[in-house]
Amino acid sequence: MSEHVDVPADHPRYESLLTRHRIEAGVDKGITSRQGLIAQGRGEAFDYLLGERTTPSADEAERVATAHLLLADHAVLSVNGNVAALAPRETVELAEATGADIEVNLFNRTEERMQAIVDHLREHGAGEVKGLNADARIPGLSHERGKVDSDGIHDADVVLVPLEDGDRAEALADMGKIELVVDLNPGSRSARSATVPIVDNIVRALPNMTEHARELADADEATLRGIVENFDAEKALDDAEREIRSGSFE
Amino acid sequence: MSEHVDVPADHPRYESLLTRHRIEAGVDKGITSRQGLIAQGRGEAFDYLLGERTTPSADEAERVATAHLLLADHAVLSVNGNVAALAPRETVELAEATGADIEVNLFNRTEERMQAIVDHLREHGAGEVKGLNADARIPGLSHERGKVDSDGIHDADVVLVPLEDGDRAEALADMGKIELVVDLNPGSRSARSATVPIVDNIVRALPNMTEHARELADADEATLRGIVENFDAEKALDDAEREIRSGSFE
Repeated sequence: MSEHVDVPADHPRYESLLTRHRIEAGVDKGITSRQGLIAQGRGEAFDYLLGERTTPSADEAERVATAHLLLADHAVLSVNGNVAALAPRETVELAEATGADIEVNLFNRTEERMQAIVDHLREHGAGEVKGLNADARIPGLSHERGKVDSDGIHDADVVLVPLEDGDRAEALADMGKIELVVDLNPGSRSARSATVPIVDNIVRALPNMTEHARELADADEATLRGIVENFDAEKALDDAEREIRSGSFE
Repeated sequence: MSEHVDVPADHPRYESLLTRHRIEAGVDKGITSRQGLIAQGRGEAFDYLLGERTTPSADEAERVATAHLLLADHAVLSVNGNVAALAPRETVELAEATGADIEVNLFNRTEERMQAIVDHLREHGAGEVKGLNADARIPGLSHERGKVDSDGIHDADVVLVPLEDGDRAEALADMGKIELVVDLNPGSRSARSATVPIVDNIVRALPNMTEHARELADADEATLRGIVENFDAEKALDDAEREIRSGSFE
């Protein structure tokens, strides 16, 4: 990584401090909102209880979610302010490894923030970034909240929505899409409405999904279908709850 | 309460939304920092797992902490940006009910933020607010981090430090002060270094302590000493951990 952070890579809190650095830089660039900072704190607390690691159950969910992306007719990775700030290159790499589109989608949409996030993703290697057209709507959401691109999220059969607001996650699920959610709170409405809930930190989840995508690059459709069909979302949420409840307070 | 919040008082999320409103207003007034917003999010997650209520164990810790304030030769309530934003009037009322001083103490100290917080507390009824002199030091902390008033925190035998940074909480404990900590994470270094750890939301803890102070106003010293001596800090932390682990994910 090329970021300028005054923390040695072998520091025990390196990853957590790097994450903090990225989210603060996101504020400076007009990408991360106040609500985003508060949401980051909530995530930190759940991640702390999870032991700041990808659990075996989350790793399995990431493999299943990756198989869904590879099976999709049209997969879209939805990016909000925190996703863009925390994992821009990781998002681009996952899109490349799975053939998914990238679309910016904000809970508090302003043209300035949309453009800042699109620019930030392009600086980190993104080609086309959707979301600026906003020529379609997600049914059941207010006008501003429901804006999407007709040839992006609206058209997708599989969407990855990391750190998504509960209302929108439910509305996307109601559209019949296969919804892959990354959320550190297994009790959130987003996690509970997901086809595949991934209870993990996005900075670990996305690179791990990219690795799975590379391993599964040559898998045939039957293999991918087998991975997808064996998944039990309820069990994944229960596993995550159990891990959090048994987490170390230190 | 006289705040303008577009949420009816009987809304199930009223308290949580009011808290969110206050912390955002704190940003507008230059009181709450970015780190403060992230810390607010961490607190929200722990409070969610606690069920957003004062547990019986926390209520007992609040009663014990109040007895310490009443027994003190010189008690000081330490106020940082989030405390000032979230509970300015509640801080003033507790100071009045216990005869404690109020001192502003910031992890990221700037004269602008110090003054904004002093002004905010005065708008909410505070008389004298210490912290601007900064003519003494807490041993073991860097110059800026260790600044306190010689006739305030430096001189105090009992300090209430809500939402305090771990380094400073430990340094205050090392000075031999009776330290009362409000922190929603029972595993934090602040909670673990406290004479009395209070694992509760500050917006509930402070008014509850004021109520205890009013009930204990006529108690003699022997009664107050009895309350203080029966307290088991380790058990209070264990109780809080148990509550969080058994919390509902909904």
